[in-house]
Amino acid sequence: MKEFAYIRWIQKQLKTSPEVNIPSGDDCAGIKIGRNKTALITTDVIVEGIDFRLGAGGATAFQVGYKALAVSISDIAAMGGVPGLSGRDSLSSRETKRSGADKLYAVATVTLRKELSGKFAKELFRGMKTIAHKFNIPLIGGDVSSTKGPICISTTVIGIAGTKGTLKRSGAKENDAIMVTGKLGGSILGKHLNFIPRLAEARTLNTYYRINSMIDLSDGLLADLNHILKPSGEGAILWENNIPISNDAYKLSRKDKKSPLSHALTDGEDFELLFTLPMREAYKITRDTPLKIPVSFIGIICKGKGINLLTGQGQIKKLIPKGYEHFA
Amino acid sequence: MKEFAYIRWIQKQLKTSPEVNIPSGDDCAGIKIGRNKTALITTDVIVEGIDFRLGAGGATAFQVGYKALAVSISDIAAMGGVPGLSGRDSLSSRETKRSGADKLYAVATVTLRKELSGKFAKELFRGMKTIAHKFNIPLIGGDVSSTKGPICISTTVIGIAGTKGTLKRSGAKENDAIMVTGKLGGSILGKHLNFIPRLAEARTLNTYYRINSMIDLSDGLLADLNHILKPSGEGAILWENNIPISNDAYKLSRKDKKSPLSHALTDGEDFELLFTLPMREAYKITRDTPLKIPVSFIGIICKGKGINLLTGQGQIKKLIPKGYEHFA
Repeated sequence: MKEFAYIRWIQKQLKTSPEVNIPSGDDCAGIKIGRNKTALITTDVIVEGIDFRLGAGGATAFQVGYKALAVSISDIAAMGGVPGLSGRDSLSSRETKRSGADKLYAVATVTLRKELSGKFAKELFRGMKTIAHKFNIPLIGGDVSSTKGPICISTTVIGIAGTKGTLKRSGAKENDAIMVTGKLGGSILGKHLNFIPRLAEARTLNTYYRINSMIDLSDGLLADLNHILKPSGEGAILWENNIPISNDAYKLSRKDKKSPLSHALTDGEDFELLFTLPMREAYKITRDTPLKIPVSFIGIICKGKGINLLTGQGQIKKLIPKGYEHFA
Repeated sequence: MKEFAYIRWIQKQLKTSPEVNIPSGDDCAGIKIGRNKTALITTDVIVEGIDFRLGAGGATAFQVGYKALAVSISDIAAMGGVPGLSGRDSLSSRETKRSGADKLYAVATVTLRKELSGKFAKELFRGMKTIAHKFNIPLIGGDVSSTKGPICISTTVIGIAGTKGTLKRSGAKENDAIMVTGKLGGSILGKHLNFIPRLAEARTLNTYYRINSMIDLSDGLLADLNHILKPSGEGAILWENNIPISNDAYKLSRKDKKSPLSHALTDGEDFELLFTLPMREAYKITRDTPLKIPVSFIGIICKGKGINLLTGQGQIKKLIPKGYEHFA
């Protein structure tokens, strides 16, 4: 049974519950608590050999711990972000109120092989603690066990957001602008181990602009855009010339036969924000430049199914959102 | 680095946060939310080869899924229990208000080997769903990945309890009665895979009696009693004749050279409730018999360190709470 088929089968088995206002299938689950608050919960597992490898050229113990928690923080960001960030990115209490959101908490379970050193175990925890501290997220509990196989680290992050504050995948509307933060592709060269979850950026966007839908890029631009289009019942046109391509996508492209564009469209684990919003709001963002990282206007939501690419030569090409091998 | 040493080291690294009113070290973490509510969060991981094994005489896929979620539900029970149980055990809404507690939610991450069948994966989920349904706990999210090694399943259960509703390990007081539910020992013969978390029982106890401290029995009676004594700064005397010994402890005793009592005192994973309370409250429980399972009055909390056993012959024996090999 394939992983995605299993997940779809599980999703069908899950009963909906009246107070679960964001069911399985989005970046986080949401539970209505009190009158107008939503608790956000996300859980992720990273596995040695799949999400990281150790040894020469691979991840350090610090990076493994860092990544394990970062992927869950990125899921929370994609739902609308929360305050509680430390340092100069912090919102004032007025802004916190405006965004209607509250603090995050994390728990984690770690399985390690007995032959790994105490130093390794401590470095792994230090990586987790470093990103928790950076985003002012108390680590409040956990469980540790041993394994004879690959290391598995599971993290759960919990937050409380105002009902206003949750951004779903399903909210994209016809004529919405499609925007993305940062530059895309080639994260396997390093970014997938040390990315900064876009929690501050998502919070700024959600506080000051009217965002209709948002997701974090974990499976790749095309696959994740498809995760927005399907529940929204829409299609999309992307503009080739506006896709932001990272230096690592160019670097990787010189090693393999894929184009830098292909890497930007299909590589996973960029953990940038992909979001859609009314055109006039996109113009405001372009004018205001409210973030310290680039935001690119890469396409529009339109009627119909699927994703089309408007090439630099003015041609329309159909894109299949399943990763590079299906992309002509 | 040993597992417990690693956990102790991690606990030292964790900063306390003013809103975290139950820090790491109890059965759940607790976060103050709103004026007088506490969110309870617990996370556990079970690993193939340690917490279960597959194949002849081992666990079925259903039992693996069941156990993975049951251990976390048991942790929530040990903090004071919550309502939301289905069927005739349900509290009326007045009782729900009285216990000051709210509903539970669960998320899980599962890593499976690729060669395991779709049927196995589905049965595993069915086990998890069965216990979730039994306790009316919506499964609201999760993550699935593959591994080349042992199956790891991590579960996180979240609930909201009134401040009154949380029972900590640290609350035991001198002259408290020590009570335990059910019968103990030999869970390896089967109970560790199909135990019923004592959520309803913990809730009844916490609603109608003044309980000072509570824990669920996962490491064994002596080890878990020690988890109450240490933070409470107290000692204990147990009465040999009152320790409830399970049939499986007798059965196991006939196979190995340990006494049935030793099994009851040191075997892990009974997942019964161990709690302490003022003597007059213990008498009330003995008189009322409010639970459908046995409750035994096994000893008292007293000044001093450590655990002593009053034998059937009237002798006092010092017990060392580290598992059977240290127990004379």
